[in-house]
Amino acid sequence: MARTSERSQRGGHSGVSIEDVAAAAGVSTATVSRAVRGLPRVSPATRQKILDVAGDLGYVASSSASGLATGRTKTIGVLAPFVSRWFFSKAIEGADRELHARNYNLSLFNLGGHGSNRERLFSKTMVYKQIDALLVLCMALTHEELEHLQKIDIPLVVVGGHVEECAYIGIDDYAAASTAVRHLIDLGHRDIALLHGDDETDLNFDVPRVRILAFKDVMTAAGLPTRPEWDEWGDFTVRSGQAAFRRLWSKPGAKPTAIFCASDEMAMGVIFEASRLGVRVPEDLSVVGIDNHDFAEAVGLTTVGQRPDEQAELATKMLLDELDGQVGSVQSAVAPHELIVRRTTAPPQF
Amino acid sequence: MARTSERSQRGGHSGVSIEDVAAAAGVSTATVSRAVRGLPRVSPATRQKILDVAGDLGYVASSSASGLATGRTKTIGVLAPFVSRWFFSKAIEGADRELHARNYNLSLFNLGGHGSNRERLFSKTMVYKQIDALLVLCMALTHEELEHLQKIDIPLVVVGGHVEECAYIGIDDYAAASTAVRHLIDLGHRDIALLHGDDETDLNFDVPRVRILAFKDVMTAAGLPTRPEWDEWGDFTVRSGQAAFRRLWSKPGAKPTAIFCASDEMAMGVIFEASRLGVRVPEDLSVVGIDNHDFAEAVGLTTVGQRPDEQAELATKMLLDELDGQVGSVQSAVAPHELIVRRTTAPPQF
Repeated sequence: MARTSERSQRGGHSGVSIEDVAAAAGVSTATVSRAVRGLPRVSPATRQKILDVAGDLGYVASSSASGLATGRTKTIGVLAPFVSRWFFSKAIEGADRELHARNYNLSLFNLGGHGSNRERLFSKTMVYKQIDALLVLCMALTHEELEHLQKIDIPLVVVGGHVEECAYIGIDDYAAASTAVRHLIDLGHRDIALLHGDDETDLNFDVPRVRILAFKDVMTAAGLPTRPEWDEWGDFTVRSGQAAFRRLWSKPGAKPTAIFCASDEMAMGVIFEASRLGVRVPEDLSVVGIDNHDFAEAVGLTTVGQRPDEQAELATKMLLDELDGQVGSVQSAVAPHELIVRRTTAPPQF
Repeated sequence: MARTSERSQRGGHSGVSIEDVAAAAGVSTATVSRAVRGLPRVSPATRQKILDVAGDLGYVASSSASGLATGRTKTIGVLAPFVSRWFFSKAIEGADRELHARNYNLSLFNLGGHGSNRERLFSKTMVYKQIDALLVLCMALTHEELEHLQKIDIPLVVVGGHVEECAYIGIDDYAAASTAVRHLIDLGHRDIALLHGDDETDLNFDVPRVRILAFKDVMTAAGLPTRPEWDEWGDFTVRSGQAAFRRLWSKPGAKPTAIFCASDEMAMGVIFEASRLGVRVPEDLSVVGIDNHDFAEAVGLTTVGQRPDEQAELATKMLLDELDGQVGSVQSAVAPHELIVRRTTAPPQF
């Protein structure tokens, strides 16, 4: 009786119930529910098995099968650590394109960087009850925040930085960073500095670490040394790029002929500060970044480009398809990157 | 009887009803309601009279006096033409600071520039029903959009560009532009070019026009000619600044020694392109902008700074105070601007 009622609530898309799928897959209905919604805490193997079984049985999830028929807000939450930095503003625009095309609202949850008052954004009031799905933009998360995200019972996709157990859209950071460093080596550079992003080790954010690892691996594979005194850091901003260049250039001893920067904003900070101090780019110093920031073309910056707007648009499409009952729409995917050679890199002048 | 009931609904903040205020001011209760909520279609003089009368009588608006007790969404809409340009991303961050401090949600309505699909954002579903108040960020509006905004019956503030009959927070564009041009004249420049923002005359957007007017007035007052061939335009982007510089510099005849740009993004486009073409800034060309963009300090750009984040924060505070029943919180206000002299302006070299 309860089952008949549940079926009829599902709008009769299919004669197959969630119990049928659970029984055939040998898991609980809760696990089926989580698997079809693309939620965390279901292993990839289990999820695939459930999706296969669901497909074989002809199970069609409807809105109510996703548990979302009641209380639909037609609003998607976008959780971002910043709004005014390039990656995030572009990603928000991309998410917005898809949302508005499908008549959804965008509710913006800005964490405002690290620190104060972040935790309240993860509270039930702010996130859980007023949105149908959540898009998380790349950020460093505390352990508590990570736990909250893993418990959240609405469809969820992360863009631009891995979050354990969550579906993730983003470039292959290792490959992108390797491409940038190899470009410098291919030009003949041997003395290459690194300007890496902040690595706050207590937070769950692997983008900086992966880009550092790629730099070191590619240098080692080419038989080139990485010097500790040429290992600089910044927080992905122009200002931190300027400061890093000043520190690097004020050190005694030999200067690098090239620098790999983990973001275009930091790379542009290096270029602006080098120009101010009379260091010529690319004659004295080649500079390569990652991103293809809006200003990169104007500055002539060589970079490994990515499209956060398209990444967020794809992630948003997955979330809305999932809400529309298309089982398994939420999937991790690798976004493309490409080397764009402009005027800030050249062979070293000996 | 009805009146007693209405009073009790107001939570007994005061013994004075909206009818008392209307009678004393000689207007309808609807006009009192609009005046205390800071809505358009009440003349400034009438509004002031109503607020004075309300103050004299000790009238205290409660949420229900603002007609918003039922259906409160605790969500403020932010209507923006773009997300990823500096002014708008900063304004969104500012609005967000105030909203989150007061436990409101931010619903972002991005018009995505000019053209397609804008009208649906003004529909009842998107704007009217799901938000308690609306923050409009500076943009060019069609006549239909303007009519919609003027009819909207929730508190409304515009930031960064006048909208007829609506409360408005922003810098004095005429004074800011005049300051920039006078700075060039004070340095000794006589041959000054103009890079103005797009002037789409069929849209309601006066910022470009006001900055052009200020340029011409200040030049005329100083006895300096404005040459049509040195009057360039752009759309407030870096790319359009680059294109404008190329057009300007490819014209036959004398070159200007300075250029006033109506935004920092356009000014930086000019600087980047000048650098690429071997034109030295400031030796060959002084460049001044308006904004104090995040990159301005790094580039050394002389500019007239403004703080869109603070403008939007103030506007949001007014909206929330109004929703909290603080009569007359929504008011137009002029935001500060300041000349910031850096390295892109210098006396002309003869």
